[in-house]
Amino acid sequence: MTMKKAENISEMLSRIEVYRNYISNEIANTQFPSTPSELYEPVKYILDLGGKRMRPILSMMACELFSGDFENAKNAALSVEIFHNFTLIHDDIMDEAPLRRGKTTVHKKWNERVGLLSGDRMMIESYQKLVQYNPDILPKILKLYNITAIEVCEGQQMDMDHETRDDVDIEQYITMIRKKTAVLLGCSLQLGAIVGGASEKDAQDLYDFGTNLGIAFQLQDDILDVYADQSKFGKQVGGDILANKKTYLLLTALETANGEQLARLKSLFEETDPEKKVREVKAIYSELNIQEKAQKQMEIFYRSAMEKLDSIQVDDAKKMPLRALANFLLSRES
Amino acid sequence: MTMKKAENISEMLSRIEVYRNYISNEIANTQFPSTPSELYEPVKYILDLGGKRMRPILSMMACELFSGDFENAKNAALSVEIFHNFTLIHDDIMDEAPLRRGKTTVHKKWNERVGLLSGDRMMIESYQKLVQYNPDILPKILKLYNITAIEVCEGQQMDMDHETRDDVDIEQYITMIRKKTAVLLGCSLQLGAIVGGASEKDAQDLYDFGTNLGIAFQLQDDILDVYADQSKFGKQVGGDILANKKTYLLLTALETANGEQLARLKSLFEETDPEKKVREVKAIYSELNIQEKAQKQMEIFYRSAMEKLDSIQVDDAKKMPLRALANFLLSRES
Repeated sequence: MTMKKAENISEMLSRIEVYRNYISNEIANTQFPSTPSELYEPVKYILDLGGKRMRPILSMMACELFSGDFENAKNAALSVEIFHNFTLIHDDIMDEAPLRRGKTTVHKKWNERVGLLSGDRMMIESYQKLVQYNPDILPKILKLYNITAIEVCEGQQMDMDHETRDDVDIEQYITMIRKKTAVLLGCSLQLGAIVGGASEKDAQDLYDFGTNLGIAFQLQDDILDVYADQSKFGKQVGGDILANKKTYLLLTALETANGEQLARLKSLFEETDPEKKVREVKAIYSELNIQEKAQKQMEIFYRSAMEKLDSIQVDDAKKMPLRALANFLLSRES
Repeated sequence: MTMKKAENISEMLSRIEVYRNYISNEIANTQFPSTPSELYEPVKYILDLGGKRMRPILSMMACELFSGDFENAKNAALSVEIFHNFTLIHDDIMDEAPLRRGKTTVHKKWNERVGLLSGDRMMIESYQKLVQYNPDILPKILKLYNITAIEVCEGQQMDMDHETRDDVDIEQYITMIRKKTAVLLGCSLQLGAIVGGASEKDAQDLYDFGTNLGIAFQLQDDILDVYADQSKFGKQVGGDILANKKTYLLLTALETANGEQLARLKSLFEETDPEKKVREVKAIYSELNIQEKAQKQMEIFYRSAMEKLDSIQVDDAKKMPLRALANFLLSRES
């Protein structure tokens, strides 16, 4: 991919910081009741853990794209951030994860009952934020939001199903990451577009931009997990290989390997020496050009995203923050 | 309490069957996707377990009270029934309950992850049903629904807190049962009233009727658990006493006992002979007139409920189904 107008990127990134600070402030100032404390302390705890605030930033950028102002997207931005954090609490219970953003997960810091119920409470809160919008756009907002929330649940179930299934194909994998991760990015953008007064078509194009970008981002995650520079990568490089995780890379290898390669790959699932396992799986990936194939697939989704952004009926200059953000996200090394 | 126009009750009860059949049919005909199957099979499973369908029946009765027709309440009725069943799945996980309506609970039949996620999915579905209503009443519907859902979460957390606290007072107990159980009955009625075109005041009165009735119903549960005829009672009589459950009866006894009675009562918390434990706690309850006190308190809430129903600006004859239902609920022996 090309870095269009790279000279503007640092300016755009500081613009992103404005959005991030705004939403972090709003979150910090959100009041919850003090009791029952085991219901509300986890809500404050997870929201204060931070994170990139990518979804609310997308809502605000989308709103500004059409209205020239991002403040009307405040409640949409809070809604998607609260929803996202609700899914993190519940997913962490399902995945038995001990850590989230380097801190103890809610169900480990308290217990599973607390994680379950405070997660439920957050989902209601995310609707509560949306209900603040005018009745003339509310049905449109809620229909989009409901469909997205449903797909996120389906994506999470598909992800869990993939762990035990041995017949997952690439199309199913793309559907899974689209539902589990990408649609919420698309929804965040489209909500911002709706409250910013975009036309139906522009709002839909922005949704498609977001979901395609989300899939590209997720594919890049799969690539980085194997090929990142360990000194710059936050997690253990090769973690997905060690866990036999059915990523785009592994599924592509399984689909394109010849008989002998397939036998080697499958026997490596049982390999107990971690260094040998990563080295030999990477060797097979190399024989099969897996990195290039994944890169190419990622770029297809990236280009689809950019085409959707291009087709939006707004001055190209105004699209620069979204373009810069997309470039930034997909040029990361960690 | 008096059974007004008892001669009409059997007629009214057959009317209730009409509502129940209607909603059971609607639920049976509700289509969910076939995959991911572990997400959707539990949804169908819990909804098909049946139950009294009290909440949807209340929505439909309320709608008919104002509009002369109950079909416009269909989506509200489905919403509250789906929400109620979502709370059952999640509560059963939190309470580690093996059985629900005599059948295996979702998290035991599948596992906790499945219960967690399919519960989440149902909560979204309950919003999905509400979004079908006209934009002119949608904000009112959603504000009521959100507040109710929030209170239900708070009530569930308070209930769990009460298990380990030893300083629960009666007021806190009433607040807990109001939030955990009663407000959803009030909400079911008010939703029906809103979609039936009721005035603000009438809709609010019907909400108050429902919550007061719900509290009375819950207090009667506490009374029946100790004083029901075992041959007619579905559960073990004395179950709450054996579990040292902080019911209205126990809390009243703790607040009104003299020093000697208090010492006896507290020592009975440790009693391991079940028959002796129930007998001796009941003896203390008898010394303190606990049954009468609880009955009186229940009747206060019942009368408050009926006063609210009386003050609604609709022909008294039209209120008969709700009156009959209230009488029926509070004259039960099991």
